[in-house]
Amino acid sequence: MTHTGLTVGIVGGSGYTGALLAELVARHPHAQLTHVSSEQLVGTALSSANPRLRSELRFCREAEVAGVDVAFVCTPHGEAAAVVRRLLDAGARVVDLSADFRLDAATYAQWYGEHPFPDMLPVVYGLTELFREQIAAAPLVANPGCYPTAALLALHPLLPLGLTDVVVDAKSGVSGAGKAPSARTHFCTIDSDVIAYNVREHRHYPEIERGLSLGGRGPTLTFVPHLVPLQRGIVETIYARVDELPDEAGLAALYEKAYGGERFVELCDAPPELKDVAGTNYCRLYPFVDGRAGRIVVVAALDNLMKGASGQAVQNMNVMVGWSEEEGLL
Amino acid sequence: MTHTGLTVGIVGGSGYTGALLAELVARHPHAQLTHVSSEQLVGTALSSANPRLRSELRFCREAEVAGVDVAFVCTPHGEAAAVVRRLLDAGARVVDLSADFRLDAATYAQWYGEHPFPDMLPVVYGLTELFREQIAAAPLVANPGCYPTAALLALHPLLPLGLTDVVVDAKSGVSGAGKAPSARTHFCTIDSDVIAYNVREHRHYPEIERGLSLGGRGPTLTFVPHLVPLQRGIVETIYARVDELPDEAGLAALYEKAYGGERFVELCDAPPELKDVAGTNYCRLYPFVDGRAGRIVVVAALDNLMKGASGQAVQNMNVMVGWSEEEGLL
Amino acid sequence: MTHTGLTVGIVGGSGYTGALLAELVARHPHAQLTHVSSEQLVGTALSSANPRLRSELRFCREAEVAGVDVAFVCTPHGEAAAVVRRLLDAGARVVDLSADFRLDAATYAQWYGEHPFPDMLPVVYGLTELFREQIAAAPLVANPGCYPTAALLALHPLLPLGLTDVVVDAKSGVSGAGKAPSARTHFCTIDSDVIAYNVREHRHYPEIERGLSLGGRGPTLTFVPHLVPLQRGIVETIYARVDELPDEAGLAALYEKAYGGERFVELCDAPPELKDVAGTNYCRLYPFVDGRAGRIVVVAALDNLMKGASGQAVQNMNVMVGWSEEEGLL
Amino acid sequence: MTHTGLTVGIVGGSGYTGALLAELVARHPHAQLTHVSSEQLVGTALSSANPRLRSELRFCREAEVAGVDVAFVCTPHGEAAAVVRRLLDAGARVVDLSADFRLDAATYAQWYGEHPFPDMLPVVYGLTELFREQIAAAPLVANPGCYPTAALLALHPLLPLGLTDVVVDAKSGVSGAGKAPSARTHFCTIDSDVIAYNVREHRHYPEIERGLSLGGRGPTLTFVPHLVPLQRGIVETIYARVDELPDEAGLAALYEKAYGGERFVELCDAPPELKDVAGTNYCRLYPFVDGRAGRIVVVAALDNLMKGASGQAVQNMNVMVGWSEEEGLL
Repeated sequence: MTHTGLTVGIVGGSGYTGALLAELVARHPHAQLTHVSSEQLVGTALSSANPRLRSELRFCREAEVAGVDVAFVCTPHGEAAAVVRRLLDAGARVVDLSADFRLDAATYAQWYGEHPFPDMLPVVYGLTELFREQIAAAPLVANPGCYPTAALLALHPLLPLGLTDVVVDAKSGVSGAGKAPSARTHFCTIDSDVIAYNVREHRHYPEIERGLSLGGRGPTLTFVPHLVPLQRGIVETIYARVDELPDEAGLAALYEKAYGGERFVELCDAPPELKDVAGTNYCRLYPFVDGRAGRIVVVAALDNLMKGASGQAVQNMNVMVGWSEEEGLL
Repeated sequence: MTHTGLTVGIVGGSGYTGALLAELVARHPHAQLTHVSSEQLVGTALSSANPRLRSELRFCREAEVAGVDVAFVCTPHGEAAAVVRRLLDAGARVVDLSADFRLDAATYAQWYGEHPFPDMLPVVYGLTELFREQIAAAPLVANPGCYPTAALLALHPLLPLGLTDVVVDAKSGVSGAGKAPSARTHFCTIDSDVIAYNVREHRHYPEIERGLSLGGRGPTLTFVPHLVPLQRGIVETIYARVDELPDEAGLAALYEKAYGGERFVELCDAPPELKDVAGTNYCRLYPFVDGRAGRIVVVAALDNLMKGASGQAVQNMNVMVGWSEEEGLL
Repeated sequence: MTHTGLTVGIVGGSGYTGALLAELVARHPHAQLTHVSSEQLVGTALSSANPRLRSELRFCREAEVAGVDVAFVCTPHGEAAAVVRRLLDAGARVVDLSADFRLDAATYAQWYGEHPFPDMLPVVYGLTELFREQIAAAPLVANPGCYPTAALLALHPLLPLGLTDVVVDAKSGVSGAGKAPSARTHFCTIDSDVIAYNVREHRHYPEIERGLSLGGRGPTLTFVPHLVPLQRGIVETIYARVDELPDEAGLAALYEKAYGGERFVELCDAPPELKDVAGTNYCRLYPFVDGRAGRIVVVAALDNLMKGASGQAVQNMNVMVGWSEEEGLL
Repeated sequence: MTHTGLTVGIVGGSGYTGALLAELVARHPHAQLTHVSSEQLVGTALSSANPRLRSELRFCREAEVAGVDVAFVCTPHGEAAAVVRRLLDAGARVVDLSADFRLDAATYAQWYGEHPFPDMLPVVYGLTELFREQIAAAPLVANPGCYPTAALLALHPLLPLGLTDVVVDAKSGVSGAGKAPSARTHFCTIDSDVIAYNVREHRHYPEIERGLSLGGRGPTLTFVPHLVPLQRGIVETIYARVDELPDEAGLAALYEKAYGGERFVELCDAPPELKDVAGTNYCRLYPFVDGRAGRIVVVAALDNLMKGASGQAVQNMNVMVGWSEEEGLL
């Protein structure tokens, strides 16, 4: 049996994640990109919206994305759920990059309003390194948010120590705010500026919280995102208290055990630089023990559009279909 | 007689030039800022839109700007003319920062459409260093565009040599594109990018052309503006052919004669850096003779919002009212 | 009695803080800048190194800075102490911007090596808002570091609540790394990058720690600085636990009490943007209660070269000499 | 016969071009990277200097680069010639990225000093699109400079029209200034700045001049490079006068004829954006007729490290060895 020739469609191809997905799939050795939809750009060439993408395809309507083996859904939350349902019903395997399937129904209702298909929840959470087996078998995978991907990869190895308190201080590039022009994303607003935003109510908070409370009561959690003047990437500096503080060797052993065999999680012996992961699917981690203060600090870096969105979506597709996990991502 | 206590109003205070004008006037030792209008922001505090501005004023409607001694008009071209007329009729001295009064009626019609008040044209052109006497006596001054200010200051000393051909290659920061959010001004569009724009039809072309053909036939002219990833400032590198190529000493003498006594035009012995003029009202010039190619090259740098807009507007107000020209600008 | 005419000298005028101090003093209405030293630049004009500075002065040698009423010392730590001693002996009032007098002798020895004049310690700490009275009377003031200024202004109002744990996550512009070229400060290293640095051993740690343990045992403290791709400014997001968590109104009251009458500390009702303080002497604070996690979060923003260095140094000079505190700083 | 398995060595792997070459060769499907030299980094892992490069190699000494089929020389001009000679003598095919073999001996002497091996000159000039056949047969290829690559690709199609006068106004990212830290490349110098540099004597001038005067007397030429605040890429706006001005269709036909079949030269119908070529080996061109001024304007954009250096070097290797020209470059 060969896996080549599987067809792939993308719903919502005009934003940053959809455009990058199209690039990744177009370069993928086994996948064939057959549909990319965008209601605003219907009929125009993909390559006119994204000159880096070498493709003969033109944007179609959402309803025209049909008959594909794998579909990526990049529409805004709220809109995505119905599209996902339609594609699943048509027999596609689906990776949803919206927030529509990342939470349980009650939490979703609290942060986004009533969920349109609460019966579909919960869905397999597509943090590949943690849920690989479930992803392989799932018809639908909820691709994680960018901030939660970094935070959960950074904190997961600490769960056995009894995580009691967590602060996630995140610095994100502007592509995380989306492609829609606004006063906030104007060059003259961002350049030379740093700003903390949504400090009390960012929607990635419940997603991080959920990921930290698997099988019990999670730690207290504070999450403060900041915009910094660059295009791509997230650095999170994470301050954690645990029941039992390990020494450096013990800490290193925990991370080695968790990620020693992972292709896309790299353990560093110095704080990772954002530029070393920008444009890649790698998440780099640097954990250390702050003995004076009695806590663990982890610095995590990834590209919000790659491991934080489209790259991880392709990684999940590879797992779902049975291809090598790094196919199309190196 | 004292000039203190003159009242100043600004029509159109929500854009970059209006906001900077408000800052400059608020700090001006002799002027009293009494009105700043913005239809969208009516009723809100100036300081909420611009935290750097220490003022108790709130935005009013355009029609409420009345009874002022001096008015600055920062509305878009087309809208400005009627506002200017109203303010003139009410007895104010007016500096118009729009393009509505910079051209003759025929040229205006060609680039912008029919002028609403062609009988008001021509108006004194507010390039302070060149038209100081006329400005002092004028009820209305047409404040120059940012690109023409740099180009005309750079080229004016060459007119006696018989200017035959001019190329203006301009590099501008993004504030020149205005405050309105657009795909073009999104941080992720501008960062790491350089782009030539409006290469065939920029509206500052006729303004430069007019300034170079005073009293006769002007040189052939090519003007290509570029956006570069920074907020404020313009560098223009200007390539000129003249009937009689001077030597370095002769060239230097021409510029010294033109600007030796000027406060806000500085002659440099190396290409000026943009950052040395950013935030100031200075235009720096570095002319030199390219003997190999038989032409003159002039590098000019200024802050597009200061000497290229609001700073020169204040300079013009100072001249009109009889205050020292640098008042409020150092 | 008039305060005008006091003479001011700067030792170490070629770095960022010294150059900015020269600008500030040159514009100061009551101070007269008479000496700026730099061993490398001896004899060259101040304005050639810094074209924004309008001054006829030339750099002199350190030993030539004499006979001044007030001296600012901007030499590196280790070198500063001897210079300070010489200037004090000569009768000058001194503001030292190095780290030489910020710590007690034992802590200094631990972080920097043996102090050359341990008998001179302790010295009045120049965080103006907290130690105004002592500064007014002091012959020598130790000007605080940039990170500690933000952290201590942000945390001081919480001391009455019983501060038990503090995380300071700082994001700094590159001027904080100094003017010396290095691989770290190369444009291509910094642009598009974020990096945590000196995560275990930054020398501002003991300075913050000392400021938080006045009169007793301080909180546990973690301090992680990051470089972000911009020139000037620091944003610190500070996560604090206290013995008794106040409600929002109680928290606001504490800050209002501490800073309600302060000119250069501004309380905000949203996270401050770095650009709103860049180029100013203001420190902006936004404290809020994170009820879910049971902690207080404070976002602080200031310009590292102004309130974090040269601006505060001038503020301290104003206090020492008896001038209005904002003289030369608005 | 198969071409796989050819071994490749790089002399001078610690700068930007050498590091990028190592990345490109490491990913090349047919080439095997066996040596990368750097005297300063001898013994350290390539991946520690460049975390994006996945390789087990360590830096060796220049003298150890031996036995390779193809060698790239990235040492500074002056040093390169002797290395090239040694490698040629050892039987390698060599692409030299320094300036040592780009000029004739007399011109070299004028700009750089006496050439160490004048008898080796002239050498095939590695502008692939123009000299493909000679490159295929050459033991040594002189890889062009970044500015000349853009200028010559942009201007070559105009030669039949009789080029009489050329202005090349170039805007370059900072990687073009090299990796060595200096006051000029400090982040705080570059950020928010634009500066014209080497305006009278840039060493790429004679290289452009030589390329324009093949087979006769070239046009008058002015070349002014500028640094803009970004890392990678060059935009050149080129102003040309010709004996016979074509119309738009005629101009388009000339470019289509020159580059219609080229993989790495793309003709655009709007000015190219730098970011659309950054990270790629493409040069994008937008020529148009400025009828008013009677000249042709060409906007050219490329990545100075790719098509302007390392990418073109690989392209040349592909031609020399007989591989498909785009191998390892898509």
